[in-house]
Amino acid sequence: MENPDGRRRRGDASRTVVLTRAADLASVEGLDQLSLGRIAEAAAVSKSGIATLFGNKERLQLATVATARERFLATVVEPARTHARGLDRVVALLANWIAYSRDRVFPGGCFFAGASTDFDSKPGPVRDALSRALDDWHDYLAHSLKQAAERGELAAGTDGAQLAFEFTALLDAANGRSVMTGSDAPYDRAIAGLVFRLRASGAPVDALAALDAAPARPAPPHPSG
Amino acid sequence: MENPDGRRRRGDASRTVVLTRAADLASVEGLDQLSLGRIAEAAAVSKSGIATLFGNKERLQLATVATARERFLATVVEPARTHARGLDRVVALLANWIAYSRDRVFPGGCFFAGASTDFDSKPGPVRDALSRALDDWHDYLAHSLKQAAERGELAAGTDGAQLAFEFTALLDAANGRSVMTGSDAPYDRAIAGLVFRLRASGAPVDALAALDAAPARPAPPHPSG
Repeated sequence: MENPDGRRRRGDASRTVVLTRAADLASVEGLDQLSLGRIAEAAAVSKSGIATLFGNKERLQLATVATARERFLATVVEPARTHARGLDRVVALLANWIAYSRDRVFPGGCFFAGASTDFDSKPGPVRDALSRALDDWHDYLAHSLKQAAERGELAAGTDGAQLAFEFTALLDAANGRSVMTGSDAPYDRAIAGLVFRLRASGAPVDALAALDAAPARPAPPHPSG
Repeated sequence: MENPDGRRRRGDASRTVVLTRAADLASVEGLDQLSLGRIAEAAAVSKSGIATLFGNKERLQLATVATARERFLATVVEPARTHARGLDRVVALLANWIAYSRDRVFPGGCFFAGASTDFDSKPGPVRDALSRALDDWHDYLAHSLKQAAERGELAAGTDGAQLAFEFTALLDAANGRSVMTGSDAPYDRAIAGLVFRLRASGAPVDALAALDAAPARPAPPHPSG
């Protein structure tokens, strides 16, 4: 007779496989397109199997947001936390975000950019989860900027929340235009804007080398062109 | 017997009514959700009537993009063309864009922001039309910034295309966050970023009054919260 723990482990593995596929798919087709039927088709699993794992479309979408968030944290935030608090960490966060988008960690570009546009006019738990994920990222970047100012690495009086707004705007724009056009050039525009703004806030030139010297890599293959 | 011109005029009127509704609806639900059936339901017209007017979903979506573009031009670009070339026109374009988003000229916020995220990974005529509309707007803003630099209103060597990238990034971010949260505050963030960057490029303080003094109006009703 089979050990129930064996069944549990197989269920967890299926769940992980399905959610990885779901997050990839949502970044290309839209989170709102993600239904039990669509993910069953894409993951080659029966619809009843998907229904057993997730129950309904909204629970599938919420689990997909949680999975995407883990991938974002592991790619952008956690590696930056190994850098010293302050400007060094700010630069690591920005450089990691650019790599996250440019390397298509999600095949359709930033998961949260697409999903939040899908849900911005649709109140409910999915929008709330997306909004929380974005707030947490913006708040963490603002907090890191504030730490840089407190350490004297940015000019006194630097408004971390204002800079975080401006920086995430530049990053999101680069992601959107690169996905739309298949070009790598928008990342150079974003980097130029970030470097200008950090210098204008008193950042020493050499502290920005990781951003400034971000190598111009060939554009990733256009997702579906 | 009815004059064929009468029928033509009524057809044009229906077309205009349906496309106005379609552009509004697409800004909330997504352009990719816009099908013959959905717009028939929303405009209270028979599906066969919609099919007669537009033929298929893609032609309906293309006609909707053209309608949205006319509304954008009439709201943002044409009123700015009455201002003198150069910095005055740049400031008018930026102030008009903020009003266009903040006043919900499309009920779901900027039509093109939502639609381009919907279609960025979906090649075809609709993505091409959206990409052209965005390019034309960015190019016009870049050209106006270049004129301002040529007239000595911005520092010599100002890169109009770079500034246009940064400015549209700030505007799009304000639109996205305001639609997501129902708050007016993101517009103040965008204005602060625009004013800082224009001043850093040599714009005289008093030339930016129309932006700087943009009155903080109460937030529009949250579209569906």
